[in-house]
Amino acid sequence: MKNLQSVKIAYIGGGSKSWARSLMNDLALESRISGTVALYDLNYEAAVQNAKIGNRISQLDDAKSDWKYEAVSTMEEALVESDFVIISILPGSFEEMASDVHTPEKYGIYQSVGDTVGPGGHVRALRTIPMYVEIAESIKNHAPNAWVINYTNPMSLCTRTLYEVFPDIKAFGCCHEVFETQHLLGEVVKEYFNVEVEKRSDIKVNVLGINHFTWIDQASYKNIDLMPYYKQFAEKYAEKGFEKEEGKWKNSVFSSCHRVKFDLFKKYGLIAAAGDRHLAEFMPPIYLKDPETVASWKFHLTTVDFRKEDLKKKMSENQALIEETKQLEVKASGEEGVKIIQALLGLEEFVTNVNFPNKGQIEGLPLGAIVETNAVFRRDSVQPVFAGKLPLDIHNMVHRHVLNQESILQAALTKDKALALNTFINEPLLAIDRTEAEALFEEMLQNTKHYLPGWAI
Amino acid sequence: MKNLQSVKIAYIGGGSKSWARSLMNDLALESRISGTVALYDLNYEAAVQNAKIGNRISQLDDAKSDWKYEAVSTMEEALVESDFVIISILPGSFEEMASDVHTPEKYGIYQSVGDTVGPGGHVRALRTIPMYVEIAESIKNHAPNAWVINYTNPMSLCTRTLYEVFPDIKAFGCCHEVFETQHLLGEVVKEYFNVEVEKRSDIKVNVLGINHFTWIDQASYKNIDLMPYYKQFAEKYAEKGFEKEEGKWKNSVFSSCHRVKFDLFKKYGLIAAAGDRHLAEFMPPIYLKDPETVASWKFHLTTVDFRKEDLKKKMSENQALIEETKQLEVKASGEEGVKIIQALLGLEEFVTNVNFPNKGQIEGLPLGAIVETNAVFRRDSVQPVFAGKLPLDIHNMVHRHVLNQESILQAALTKDKALALNTFINEPLLAIDRTEAEALFEEMLQNTKHYLPGWAI
Amino acid sequence: MKNLQSVKIAYIGGGSKSWARSLMNDLALESRISGTVALYDLNYEAAVQNAKIGNRISQLDDAKSDWKYEAVSTMEEALVESDFVIISILPGSFEEMASDVHTPEKYGIYQSVGDTVGPGGHVRALRTIPMYVEIAESIKNHAPNAWVINYTNPMSLCTRTLYEVFPDIKAFGCCHEVFETQHLLGEVVKEYFNVEVEKRSDIKVNVLGINHFTWIDQASYKNIDLMPYYKQFAEKYAEKGFEKEEGKWKNSVFSSCHRVKFDLFKKYGLIAAAGDRHLAEFMPPIYLKDPETVASWKFHLTTVDFRKEDLKKKMSENQALIEETKQLEVKASGEEGVKIIQALLGLEEFVTNVNFPNKGQIEGLPLGAIVETNAVFRRDSVQPVFAGKLPLDIHNMVHRHVLNQESILQAALTKDKALALNTFINEPLLAIDRTEAEALFEEMLQNTKHYLPGWAI
Amino acid sequence: MKNLQSVKIAYIGGGSKSWARSLMNDLALESRISGTVALYDLNYEAAVQNAKIGNRISQLDDAKSDWKYEAVSTMEEALVESDFVIISILPGSFEEMASDVHTPEKYGIYQSVGDTVGPGGHVRALRTIPMYVEIAESIKNHAPNAWVINYTNPMSLCTRTLYEVFPDIKAFGCCHEVFETQHLLGEVVKEYFNVEVEKRSDIKVNVLGINHFTWIDQASYKNIDLMPYYKQFAEKYAEKGFEKEEGKWKNSVFSSCHRVKFDLFKKYGLIAAAGDRHLAEFMPPIYLKDPETVASWKFHLTTVDFRKEDLKKKMSENQALIEETKQLEVKASGEEGVKIIQALLGLEEFVTNVNFPNKGQIEGLPLGAIVETNAVFRRDSVQPVFAGKLPLDIHNMVHRHVLNQESILQAALTKDKALALNTFINEPLLAIDRTEAEALFEEMLQNTKHYLPGWAI
Repeated sequence: MKNLQSVKIAYIGGGSKSWARSLMNDLALESRISGTVALYDLNYEAAVQNAKIGNRISQLDDAKSDWKYEAVSTMEEALVESDFVIISILPGSFEEMASDVHTPEKYGIYQSVGDTVGPGGHVRALRTIPMYVEIAESIKNHAPNAWVINYTNPMSLCTRTLYEVFPDIKAFGCCHEVFETQHLLGEVVKEYFNVEVEKRSDIKVNVLGINHFTWIDQASYKNIDLMPYYKQFAEKYAEKGFEKEEGKWKNSVFSSCHRVKFDLFKKYGLIAAAGDRHLAEFMPPIYLKDPETVASWKFHLTTVDFRKEDLKKKMSENQALIEETKQLEVKASGEEGVKIIQALLGLEEFVTNVNFPNKGQIEGLPLGAIVETNAVFRRDSVQPVFAGKLPLDIHNMVHRHVLNQESILQAALTKDKALALNTFINEPLLAIDRTEAEALFEEMLQNTKHYLPGWAI
Repeated sequence: MKNLQSVKIAYIGGGSKSWARSLMNDLALESRISGTVALYDLNYEAAVQNAKIGNRISQLDDAKSDWKYEAVSTMEEALVESDFVIISILPGSFEEMASDVHTPEKYGIYQSVGDTVGPGGHVRALRTIPMYVEIAESIKNHAPNAWVINYTNPMSLCTRTLYEVFPDIKAFGCCHEVFETQHLLGEVVKEYFNVEVEKRSDIKVNVLGINHFTWIDQASYKNIDLMPYYKQFAEKYAEKGFEKEEGKWKNSVFSSCHRVKFDLFKKYGLIAAAGDRHLAEFMPPIYLKDPETVASWKFHLTTVDFRKEDLKKKMSENQALIEETKQLEVKASGEEGVKIIQALLGLEEFVTNVNFPNKGQIEGLPLGAIVETNAVFRRDSVQPVFAGKLPLDIHNMVHRHVLNQESILQAALTKDKALALNTFINEPLLAIDRTEAEALFEEMLQNTKHYLPGWAI
Repeated sequence: MKNLQSVKIAYIGGGSKSWARSLMNDLALESRISGTVALYDLNYEAAVQNAKIGNRISQLDDAKSDWKYEAVSTMEEALVESDFVIISILPGSFEEMASDVHTPEKYGIYQSVGDTVGPGGHVRALRTIPMYVEIAESIKNHAPNAWVINYTNPMSLCTRTLYEVFPDIKAFGCCHEVFETQHLLGEVVKEYFNVEVEKRSDIKVNVLGINHFTWIDQASYKNIDLMPYYKQFAEKYAEKGFEKEEGKWKNSVFSSCHRVKFDLFKKYGLIAAAGDRHLAEFMPPIYLKDPETVASWKFHLTTVDFRKEDLKKKMSENQALIEETKQLEVKASGEEGVKIIQALLGLEEFVTNVNFPNKGQIEGLPLGAIVETNAVFRRDSVQPVFAGKLPLDIHNMVHRHVLNQESILQAALTKDKALALNTFINEPLLAIDRTEAEALFEEMLQNTKHYLPGWAI
Repeated sequence: MKNLQSVKIAYIGGGSKSWARSLMNDLALESRISGTVALYDLNYEAAVQNAKIGNRISQLDDAKSDWKYEAVSTMEEALVESDFVIISILPGSFEEMASDVHTPEKYGIYQSVGDTVGPGGHVRALRTIPMYVEIAESIKNHAPNAWVINYTNPMSLCTRTLYEVFPDIKAFGCCHEVFETQHLLGEVVKEYFNVEVEKRSDIKVNVLGINHFTWIDQASYKNIDLMPYYKQFAEKYAEKGFEKEEGKWKNSVFSSCHRVKFDLFKKYGLIAAAGDRHLAEFMPPIYLKDPETVASWKFHLTTVDFRKEDLKKKMSENQALIEETKQLEVKASGEEGVKIIQALLGLEEFVTNVNFPNKGQIEGLPLGAIVETNAVFRRDSVQPVFAGKLPLDIHNMVHRHVLNQESILQAALTKDKALALNTFINEPLLAIDRTEAEALFEEMLQNTKHYLPGWAI
């Protein structure tokens, strides 16, 4: 029986500026478990800073539990005796990220995020997989029984790599994109039933697909089938888009008016359950043809300059917190990580969406591929639920990405450039001449070659 | 959106003396749904009687909802416009049941129940399958969108037949045997932690196997892993058995001291999750060698004479209720049927065990076979959860029964006597000479031939 | 035991101008079997003409067997009592074919054949599937035990439809494209070993893929592994192409210099085993970008005008044969149909490539999809051999077409225009804007709507 | 391109008295290949002796090729640079074999061979698997590209172990039992058509099952379907049995009158394709109830005393050959090993039965299990053909053995005595009390414990 007052969490990428804070807050707000969080980061100083902030949070009056944070200098130190491992890393620096996102623009390919699929997601994966090989081996050696929660993108390939290297690992990936779709469905309830949905999780959905290209074929609120109402809603807002406050979408690079989502519903008949900026990247360049097209669909391209700016802001905020020139506040993040940890400790049982190897939960997708469906979380147990199969046309699109991902994994593991290239040109966004595509690929590999030792670049 | 005040339930076998009463009670105790129950039975009078009792229950002060009961004279009438179909029939009469259970005794084969596997279960299945073919076709024609809940044994084959005839049926089978094992695990908690478990469902179990030969490989209560404690418990009570009140097991033909369960744990390492009288029938004649052996393992052979007696009691009780010489009382049955109905209507979400076609929820068992695992119940949705795989030695035993069941189905559908016989002798309980076995089979078929039209008997 | 002197062959599409003649010749040259060929065609006159020619061939001195040809006016008449059914039809007229091939040119999409994949293959399939539904039902009713050989394109979808409608059918599809690749491998032997390969079938190949997009991963001649030699050969002739007689490729619309094949080898590492004009259509518009590009790769676009001209020639030749103004000659066609018929009658055993439902012969492709691999042919038996799996990058391309084909089948069966459109735009050749693609699709459907009753066009 | 004049064969168990001689003879009779055979045996002297005999055979006038035989003292030496590896070992000595075969007799269990299934086959497997682990590792290290042919029993488990340890191994198992059934079918042809079948391989059969429990569902000779004739034949000879010369079966312990085979046909409808003495062991004790029953079914129990006597004879014969007091003769063995070697070198293509991991060639059996079906042999290639599925009742029996075998493998690899025992009692021949069975198991393990290091015995 696990002592709930001495839980140990290892945090790989513990110098993180955003996910780490969410975790600290959520842990502080939970009274039933306490313990230690070991923060490990290639940037040790960042981990030290986070430890300071974490320990300050623990001392706030609002904190209902007792968590100690410590920065450690090796991954092993973090992992040993841990019950949970959280992985949230930035693979490479902003420099490589800039190449992922912006180099393709020279060839007329625009990406709204560039971290999952498309040329950017592809090259990011090639760079990240070797890091995950190392992490998986370390977990195998030092924490084989720990539950491992991945937050890093590309989600599917990071999680897939963990299982490839250590098949007995107890790992899964968490993502909040589906939550946003549940919130949108809450708006549907409001629109047609004039009822405010209290909890996001009261919107029940059947989730099936792959991370950031997830689909919902059943949605309900209490005894209401929401599918026909979503249809009305999607038609009504097809042209102008939907937002709670008009015009607000323009203020945040992460916001949209769901026009892509509504258009996909019209064409394919299911609810696409991710942000428009993610969805668009899985399709041929319909929504991402050029910046004007993106604007007309009312979502944004996220520039790396924006990300740099954003990071700078967070860093100075952190500094202020450490120097106590800024007041710390504890508030729930909306993420589910801590709820999941509690379930795995036996304190709850609940059903939510998760990225997990396919055991058959999605019919027709290859076994072992990382898919996103609901799962039951319980004491020491994550069990995907059988979600059924996608309609043929959606299945074909999803399946193509699943096969691409498997090819990227093998290319990364064996440093097989020809396979990597043949997969690269198979990305739907790569609607350019093959010779152009080859030049782009070569240029992008050059830009990230520091992270590709042993490759013939 | 379903109107919760006009739910229609069709009850096939609505003259039933026990399951019907459980349903009436549980419906009465639930305030959120009301509607109609159409009772259909080959024995129309029995249905009429149940309707009377049901309507009286609805009028009791304790009844929190408004249900109308009506006996109908055709299956179609019951099914039309129904939201739910409950099937709980007695296939044939006590005469055939007597042959199922007692004819094998002449050949030295003893059965504790005789309705699931073994010679009795086998022949009962041959007789029942054609009835289920008819029911499935009727549902296909008159209530294709209704949820169908089966209670009849042999559970796996009844449910399997429904899917064979009407693959799009929304059917599953419910059984309370696992509940009893959860109660037993509650006793384990009490023994080692001195805590009274409040609700059976607080004991979390991972269920995998087939009906009446179900296994548990993970069991927990809050943050306690119960497996090591069950091991101690099973060892402690291996010889004398366990019961809450000493000696009480002798008073009820359905009771036991769990010695078979403990012995299976010792030999196979998992918790067998059904009553000893069911479990024993799936094994070679270890526990059922002869009446003395049965007694030494502290469980009972259920005679058909007992069943006749029992029925007589229930019938006179019913008569008394109708004549109002006996007071009606409403009390919860402990069954989950009504809770499930409410979940399917969108009023709850919960996880419980269910008999359902294998979609991969048990690795290694044939797809489509009816297996028992947990499932998530929600509005218009039953989704099995992935339960993993059985240890090889248990898998081999379970798999043998799964293949036998598939063979029985095909034999029944095609009236293939040779296949039926080859499967009959493949039952683990059939540890007798092949020529003897052939004679027994012939005799049993003769006894039930009224229900086997078209067979070469 | 089948009497080899009274074999009956039903020929659906028996008015055919080319395949029928091949059959007649090959039958005449085989001494071990005789019988009747019933020719059925929507164009009865064409069947009558062929019957006349066939019977004349039977009377030639060179004819070693005794075959009677008769034109019949219903499919049933042809099928009844047949041992073999050959299907080789033209689905629609040249008018629809012209739309398949040339309408996409208006949108910048060029096709070299237009009968397998791409916009032309897609629409041709929608038109052909209902015809095959009818044929399959007729075979089910009138010749359920006959062996059915399909020659019509799209090969995979025609054969797939037969199995969808009548799962117990004994059907397969024959295609000679792999033979051409064996001949090319014979040239490799000649080039490096200075040996003339006597029989095409002495070149042993492992075949895996789908019709017209088939791949070879093992090739040998006696104890020589041909793969490294093919590599040299493909490199040597990459630029200028290979042909036995220089410049000859220009004279025949069906000829090429294998440059596409060599380029695919360079990029993917396996031998593509079909004519360049077929291969090019399965890829994005690399080789088919525009007529100049096609010319630079040294293969041809087959115009429908050419086909019309070609047919006219054949018809006047036939007329001459019937009027006996032209001498009939019997010569082997190089096709394998008659050899296969003899094997199925028990006279031979041999291994050759065939289109057949996937039973696992290609790992990773969906079960039931029509794939092309080797099979063993024997008395009343076609058994595919296990061919292994394709390299990931080729697998991804093949799999995409397999999924498209399944979607087209379902769209055709259910007249689902949205599904058909979503699949249409998923063709690799469709590298145009979605709105353009929708317009093209609509136009092509209009052009063939006579064959799409019940569709919302 | 392999030089056919310098083929190297490694022979593990090269001191063998029978298989080795067959190989030497067959190699000598083939003119197209020559090379070296390296004989490795734990009994080095036996290998030296065989080398002498082999080299003498090479010098005979009848020898058409040039083979050198050399005894080597390590497995590595044999394997290095080998093109083929033949494995034919005696696992343990006659002492252990005597325990396998005769110890169960004390408990009333009789076995006719005791090397495949049943208590003897089970314990023999536990002893043999560690030896095959070692062989597989050695092949992986020293001859990863060689083709490996296994002749040792238990065939399925030996071959399965090779693949478990070294998944990329190119191994298969050869067995002549099916050949005998083809000869029997030749007798059927003779009986009903008065035709002498020239070559065994002219009898075409579809083979499906597992080694020694293989079944034939299609059999033909030229255009004759032999199934209905076999039925007549089996009925005619059901009682008295069939043999070419009356009474001769009594003279050889390996002979029978096929009564078991005919009885299985009557009960199950397919041709069982192995000797009666093997078939009987896969069934419950119907044919092996006691020695009298065995005699009444007209086959034999093979005693280990007989084997000892037989070996003594062979050894003195060998001695005579070495001392040249006996004349050497070269005659074809009837085995297919050398024919297969030639096919793998590219000199032939043919179809024959083989034991190989299931890739789907038998529907419904677990992938990876070693099954027996036909395969196509070619240059560097063995490709199983899709054989279909077994009828349900036979499938159930075969599947049980397949699962037992998998359990034995895992028990042997992990030294899991409980799993081994639970599998032991699951053998159909083990129709005795569980406590008796446990005692038998313990006794048999004791007798072979020298070969079970690390087990808790």
